Amino acid sequence: MMTPAYTPPVEEGEEVTVGALLAPDILVMLEENPDAIAAETDELHAKDLADVAQALPREMVAPFLSALPVERAADVLEYLNEDLRTEVLETMSVRQAAELVTEMTPDDRADTLEGLEEETTEGILSEIPAAERAETEKLLAYRPDSAGGLMTTEFVSVSQDTPVDEALAAVRRIARSERREAMNTIYTTDSAGRVQGVMSLRELLAAPEGAKVSDIAWEEVQTVPITADREEVARLVREYDLVAVPVVDENGVIQGVVTVDDVIDALVEEHTEDVQRFGGMEALDMPYTQIGFFSMIGKRAPWLAALFLSEMLTTTAMGHFQGELEKAVVLALFVPLIISSGGNSGSQATSLIIRSLALGEIKLRDWWKILLRELPSGLMLGAILGLMGIARILIWQQLGIAHYPHPNLLALTIGVALVGVVTFGSLAGSMLPFVLQRLGFDPASASAPFVATLVDVTGLSIYFYVALLILSGTLL
Amino acid sequence: MMTPAYTPPVEEGEEVTVGALLAPDILVMLEENPDAIAAETDELHAKDLADVAQALPREMVAPFLSALPVERAADVLEYLNEDLRTEVLETMSVRQAAELVTEMTPDDRADTLEGLEEETTEGILSEIPAAERAETEKLLAYRPDSAGGLMTTEFVSVSQDTPVDEALAAVRRIARSERREAMNTIYTTDSAGRVQGVMSLRELLAAPEGAKVSDIAWEEVQTVPITADREEVARLVREYDLVAVPVVDENGVIQGVVTVDDVIDALVEEHTEDVQRFGGMEALDMPYTQIGFFSMIGKRAPWLAALFLSEMLTTTAMGHFQGELEKAVVLALFVPLIISSGGNSGSQATSLIIRSLALGEIKLRDWWKILLRELPSGLMLGAILGLMGIARILIWQQLGIAHYPHPNLLALTIGVALVGVVTFGSLAGSMLPFVLQRLGFDPASASAPFVATLVDVTGLSIYFYVALLILSGTLL
Repeated sequence: MMTPAYTPPVEEGEEVTVGALLAPDILVMLEENPDAIAAETDELHAKDLADVAQALPREMVAPFLSALPVERAADVLEYLNEDLRTEVLETMSVRQAAELVTEMTPDDRADTLEGLEEETTEGILSEIPAAERAETEKLLAYRPDSAGGLMTTEFVSVSQDTPVDEALAAVRRIARSERREAMNTIYTTDSAGRVQGVMSLRELLAAPEGAKVSDIAWEEVQTVPITADREEVARLVREYDLVAVPVVDENGVIQGVVTVDDVIDALVEEHTEDVQRFGGMEALDMPYTQIGFFSMIGKRAPWLAALFLSEMLTTTAMGHFQGELEKAVVLALFVPLIISSGGNSGSQATSLIIRSLALGEIKLRDWWKILLRELPSGLMLGAILGLMGIARILIWQQLGIAHYPHPNLLALTIGVALVGVVTFGSLAGSMLPFVLQRLGFDPASASAPFVATLVDVTGLSIYFYVALLILSGTLL
Repeated sequence: MMTPAYTPPVEEGEEVTVGALLAPDILVMLEENPDAIAAETDELHAKDLADVAQALPREMVAPFLSALPVERAADVLEYLNEDLRTEVLETMSVRQAAELVTEMTPDDRADTLEGLEEETTEGILSEIPAAERAETEKLLAYRPDSAGGLMTTEFVSVSQDTPVDEALAAVRRIARSERREAMNTIYTTDSAGRVQGVMSLRELLAAPEGAKVSDIAWEEVQTVPITADREEVARLVREYDLVAVPVVDENGVIQGVVTVDDVIDALVEEHTEDVQRFGGMEALDMPYTQIGFFSMIGKRAPWLAALFLSEMLTTTAMGHFQGELEKAVVLALFVPLIISSGGNSGSQATSLIIRSLALGEIKLRDWWKILLRELPSGLMLGAILGLMGIARILIWQQLGIAHYPHPNLLALTIGVALVGVVTFGSLAGSMLPFVLQRLGFDPASASAPFVATLVDVTGLSIYFYVALLILSGTLL
């Protein structure tokens, strides 16, 4: 029927989205018969239409959205990448943008406006209906990573003495006439709007005729304060297997609902932050591809500089043993090998403890149990590396690749130093998250480079003291 | 009314769960009036009752579960920690355990049995009704981290030509008579059981009278094959904001449904695995507190040993410059400082790229864009550290803390080497995940210690060549 005039770039071996496949046809239709687009695409999920938009040439995205019914276009807008969404809204007329934004769900509307230039946001806000404007301004006032910043104000609640039949009729009416984002769960409230109970739509359907909603609702409702951190919301959803959490003000009055899809997005963002911080930097808080050059340097340089300053202590430590180094330069050759082994075992231990603390498997008070566990682990891992180190020296000597002075004593020094440094690495790496938590920091600030730096300085001292002990009178 | 005879240990500053607070009262009731427990706790979420169980003395957990109605006890069992759940089931009589397990949702039943000794599992399976046994054996055959291993077989599907009223009546009947875990979404199927459409319970409620379900169902259904990896399931749920994903066999026949709560658990497990692998070890695949000593060593030692073997190249590299080191031992003092800076900047870059690739922000083909971005970043970060290094040498010299030979040339050497090493670190760290992905490995295998090792070896060469260039004729 149609010949694709435009082929979006698709990479070999890369997954092809429905949207990318459709884009060429849509492009032809945009030129020849834009009115047919709505009907042709009406069975597609908004996410797939967003993929179509991503695959279109940039200047065709706004015409594409205009070809869709406005509530559909608003849905698609929610699924666009933040940068494309911003670009599209900023190229539209303010009235057109306002019309689209009005149709979005309240939480996504607030998120969208947050990403725009302040001037554009003001312009759009002034053009949307007063009720939506007030609601949006309220949501914009909450921190984006708080329960208030995540919640939608479209939810269903009924008074607790409503008869079940009446509640069901009301739910049906709402479902028919308006979009309510959070509709899988229904809340019961007292006359002041305080949450009293919760039931699933399915429990409401299953209720016996003649009952009141308070008879079937669960009275123990998990709620979060409007200022709660998104991690707290995520914890509740995960532990109680919820699809929505009601958000309440200081009087217990329900203000909104956080739905599970936003919790998943929050979890994925937390994951990204954790990996970046464990990599030894501040979390970017936006995609790598979108952050500006100097903003990125600002996230990386302070940690690098702090680590550099601490690592300067290695120079001091080595300066302390400069006399020994001059007598036996061979000792210097093993410095990177020994200190990196300590850093690596420390990095392993830290990653284990950070996640165990985050998941609540261990508590602050368990630090000594971990210490008692990491001590034998460190000794055993150190012994394995120590034997490898000894083997390396003796084999190299035997094969004539290297000619070490006092090879047996040198091998013993390296072996013993590795046991000491790896054990210290495991202990320091496992205790660092506890120390940070005790001091009120997030234990996840204990990055791999942080541990490595900590272990490098001490590791050098361990190495040189072992050398002094074993090599005194021969090499030293 | 009651005096608590037993106080569970609660840590200062630690969050107190409802369950932990109730445990003392429950303990008294278990001794004095166990029949009252069911009524006293009937408004609590199963998760809170699981917290009660965790806070009870171990030997009282089975009596506590026995005091609850069996379907309630089964719910509580689902929320117990795996080790407590295993312990409780293994201390019960096989018949009692089978009764409880029969009441669990199919997916949790399979997960629970998977955690038990094979003998116990066999015993329990032989005691549960044939239909549940067959269903459980089917689920047990799938990999636990596949769609088949995650799915429940309790879902609602209707034939596509069912009238809406009839479908609603059926849903209501099911909701009243049986528990179906995945009930927020309803699937329509053809006569062969192939998925044809999807609708939310809310869309079914909103449907006009007289319509058929096929009129209101969405025809583009996101499904996953039964063998799909859980990451694929999680991606669909995240991208399409789903609360459930249907799992189909090779003919498109629906076999089960993965619900969002299991997807969240899978995401959290992936998060743990990623952090542990980035820490330079194999993922534990079970809680740190539960894994055996030698299993843990087995997850850590191979990576430590592989890194150690690679890091031995630093000894070779330094041996290559032993002559220079003998002439100027002062050069050795800065070795840890310089190579660790390269490792740190590399670790930062790797953490950025791993997450960007995982989130699909960048693709394999974008490697050169990243290279063009990391080059100036590395140069700038290197310049910052270089200036700090130069300042350190000159200030120490000025203050008389150190007496370096040719301090200006030495400072220049350190500064230039830092620019080179940090730039190389950023480039190597950012390219490593691409190289791994290109070779068919998971880019998340690029751990911080891996990058540090890679950079240490090259970093040493950069440092000594810079030294030769600048210090030839003076120090060297």
